[in-house]
Amino acid sequence: ACGGAPMQGYHVAPMERIRVGVVGTGGRGRAAANRILGVPGVDVTAVCDIRTECANATADDVEKATGRRPKVFAGTAEDYLRLCDLDDVDVVYNATSWNAHAPVALGAMRAGKHALVEVPSAMTIDECWELVETSERTKRYCMQLENCCYGETELLGVNLARLGLLGELVHGEGAYIHDRRFSIYHSSQWNDWRKHWNEIHAGNQYPTHGLGPVAVAMDVNRGDRFDYLVSVDGEQKSYVAYADATLPPGDPRHARYAMADMNVTTIRTAKGRTIMLQHDVSTPRPYSRLDLLSGTKGIIRGYPRLEIFLEGKDSWPLSRHGHHLFSEEETARYRALYRHPLVKTTAALAKSADGAASGHGGIDYVMDLRWAYCLQQGLPLDMDVYDLAAWCAVCELSERSARDRSRPVDFPDFTRGGWKTPSASPLFTADIDLAKIDFANVAAKAKMSA
Amino acid sequence: ACGGAPMQGYHVAPMERIRVGVVGTGGRGRAAANRILGVPGVDVTAVCDIRTECANATADDVEKATGRRPKVFAGTAEDYLRLCDLDDVDVVYNATSWNAHAPVALGAMRAGKHALVEVPSAMTIDECWELVETSERTKRYCMQLENCCYGETELLGVNLARLGLLGELVHGEGAYIHDRRFSIYHSSQWNDWRKHWNEIHAGNQYPTHGLGPVAVAMDVNRGDRFDYLVSVDGEQKSYVAYADATLPPGDPRHARYAMADMNVTTIRTAKGRTIMLQHDVSTPRPYSRLDLLSGTKGIIRGYPRLEIFLEGKDSWPLSRHGHHLFSEEETARYRALYRHPLVKTTAALAKSADGAASGHGGIDYVMDLRWAYCLQQGLPLDMDVYDLAAWCAVCELSERSARDRSRPVDFPDFTRGGWKTPSASPLFTADIDLAKIDFANVAAKAKMSA
Repeated sequence: ACGGAPMQGYHVAPMERIRVGVVGTGGRGRAAANRILGVPGVDVTAVCDIRTECANATADDVEKATGRRPKVFAGTAEDYLRLCDLDDVDVVYNATSWNAHAPVALGAMRAGKHALVEVPSAMTIDECWELVETSERTKRYCMQLENCCYGETELLGVNLARLGLLGELVHGEGAYIHDRRFSIYHSSQWNDWRKHWNEIHAGNQYPTHGLGPVAVAMDVNRGDRFDYLVSVDGEQKSYVAYADATLPPGDPRHARYAMADMNVTTIRTAKGRTIMLQHDVSTPRPYSRLDLLSGTKGIIRGYPRLEIFLEGKDSWPLSRHGHHLFSEEETARYRALYRHPLVKTTAALAKSADGAASGHGGIDYVMDLRWAYCLQQGLPLDMDVYDLAAWCAVCELSERSARDRSRPVDFPDFTRGGWKTPSASPLFTADIDLAKIDFANVAAKAKMSA
Repeated sequence: ACGGAPMQGYHVAPMERIRVGVVGTGGRGRAAANRILGVPGVDVTAVCDIRTECANATADDVEKATGRRPKVFAGTAEDYLRLCDLDDVDVVYNATSWNAHAPVALGAMRAGKHALVEVPSAMTIDECWELVETSERTKRYCMQLENCCYGETELLGVNLARLGLLGELVHGEGAYIHDRRFSIYHSSQWNDWRKHWNEIHAGNQYPTHGLGPVAVAMDVNRGDRFDYLVSVDGEQKSYVAYADATLPPGDPRHARYAMADMNVTTIRTAKGRTIMLQHDVSTPRPYSRLDLLSGTKGIIRGYPRLEIFLEGKDSWPLSRHGHHLFSEEETARYRALYRHPLVKTTAALAKSADGAASGHGGIDYVMDLRWAYCLQQGLPLDMDVYDLAAWCAVCELSERSARDRSRPVDFPDFTRGGWKTPSASPLFTADIDLAKIDFANVAAKAKMSA
């Protein structure tokens, strides 16, 4: 009833208090550690980083907020294994660099811990398979921390799809369009890992923000599946132009990139839907995840601003010439009318959470609230290991296609046929019963009482 | 100096008065005949259609407006050849159904007439080659009537590109997204040709509106060229759903379609740019041609509304986190500041031209004004036969790719190496010197004096 693959709909017994070990305490992991101290019933009992100063800084944060210092593991690339072995860790929250996502998650599950993994959670097909097989064997959750699945627009799209208001979905679009020129050349990231990854990898290496919500709306792995993709890279001009304009000659940061300015990847699903993905982290243009869902009865798009057109009886005279228009009034009305339950429930919470720590306008906090709630209530997590594998497979598959004159490349079926069993993503009806949560019961006593 | 292929930059001696034979006088051709009666120095001397009543109706229009009845050829599919043989026809204006575009244009050139051809002007690669070879051999113009190249937004994009304000172009997008459900099921087109074409052809069969302006901005055939494409079709759901909802069972208009709801075609150019094209004429969503150009210094997009971001010194602080925003004020300022010369010159004319006849907000009239002006002044036409071939090649190539699991398909080089010689499209600086035109000298005396 809950899906055709072993870990679909799977859930463990309710956990009262959740003890989290955070691995990777650079910018993202440190923010996460601070954020989840404000999630009821969650403790941060251990932290780990290759850089000792980063691990200590986060431990200081936790101690300051809670009065209890977490265990600290730091100094080598293998320290995470010691964190994973701790008895007082239930969940490993993994905010390491991309190439450490899968190894740390595997280490966590092999040690009997649930793995929550930043995006993309796997960079290769082999990693995808190993995560799937390990999650199935150990019966541990392996959830991708795809925060954009908790965006208001994305959840609105999922809700419109669920309610059938878009008709039958035929096409979706997602993107990661984010000018990262400054951040890539002035990074404090360990070993400049993101820049180096861009130097050696082509294709779309950061697909999940845009793809995840579309895949959820389209029942991917739950009645449909990704069949194949084709991926087209251009040249890389903008990073190079930026470096030439801002760095002195001979600066070691000058580099050549396998990553194109623009990558366009198009996926076809088994049910014959199309999904167009874009990746551009180098040209000067406004941020966009596109966030488009198009069906036989209407359309929603998220960028550059939310716009919704639904074909109702009112719009039929217009249909004669097909000159529909987006209307600000209609969009605002639909936005209010079809707000996702989780957004309704958490809007005030997301806003009132500590601004700096909540992250990305509150969606990080909502995501953390929700996985903690699911663990506490004994519910399946919102995204399973098959979602992770399907979404992350784009990294390697798009690179293989883009490097080989855009030839079509097939997706593996990580569900081993389970996708044929229709089921609903937990995100369709995800919500939190606030009556079941004690908001006084947070680790960060000082902050929450302020 | 004017390009590397024989018909690039080619021009004939100035023509004083231009005598036009219109072939295909359904909705589009009849409007064209009426429209060009308002273009100075142009006469409509002959009309032709398979349907006698259509040819006569247009002849009636011309006679009423000018006092002179054009010759009428009608009744069979070969009558256009008799029109092409007329001594008092200089230019054959071809607004027939898609599959007659190339044959009529070939007939015109073989009879020594210049050919102006509605879009797409060729549906197959063979037709593309035959038009190229015939234009080269006969030294007759073969220009695609791509009216969208005369849109204000498209010309603004071309101008921004020409001025270098977008930096080096890296990516472009174009589309034909137009809900044609009503028009396809309630068409007065001869033999329902458009519907039948959709029934039997997959891929993107109407690519030029979106592609043409992007190709112009990117110097395609004039320094760059289309290298290959990949094309992805979804299923067709919306036409079928519309028919099921609005037609009685057993109605002969019920049909199955090779055409998908959405086709996504991505082109890579020899210089490593990407162009993403979409075709959707069946889902309920607002009209769009996308009209996006993205470069190392900025971006312009046309839909759902005009938005421009240019990276100037002012925007550098923002660049640190890459959180650029489109600004209505900046867009309005750039729109005014970088208006294309042709738009400046013709804005008032396009607006004052007879509303019904001018077509598509005036761009059809501007297009007609411009080719007539070029012929009268002895200038090369704005689009040559290589533009036509490259843009229209997408019809067959996208279908081949989409039907074969989206495999990459190479573009022929219709310029036979000529693309390597950099040159500027006439559209870059297209303009009209109003002092050289006598606006009293129009065929439609009655209308223009009113």
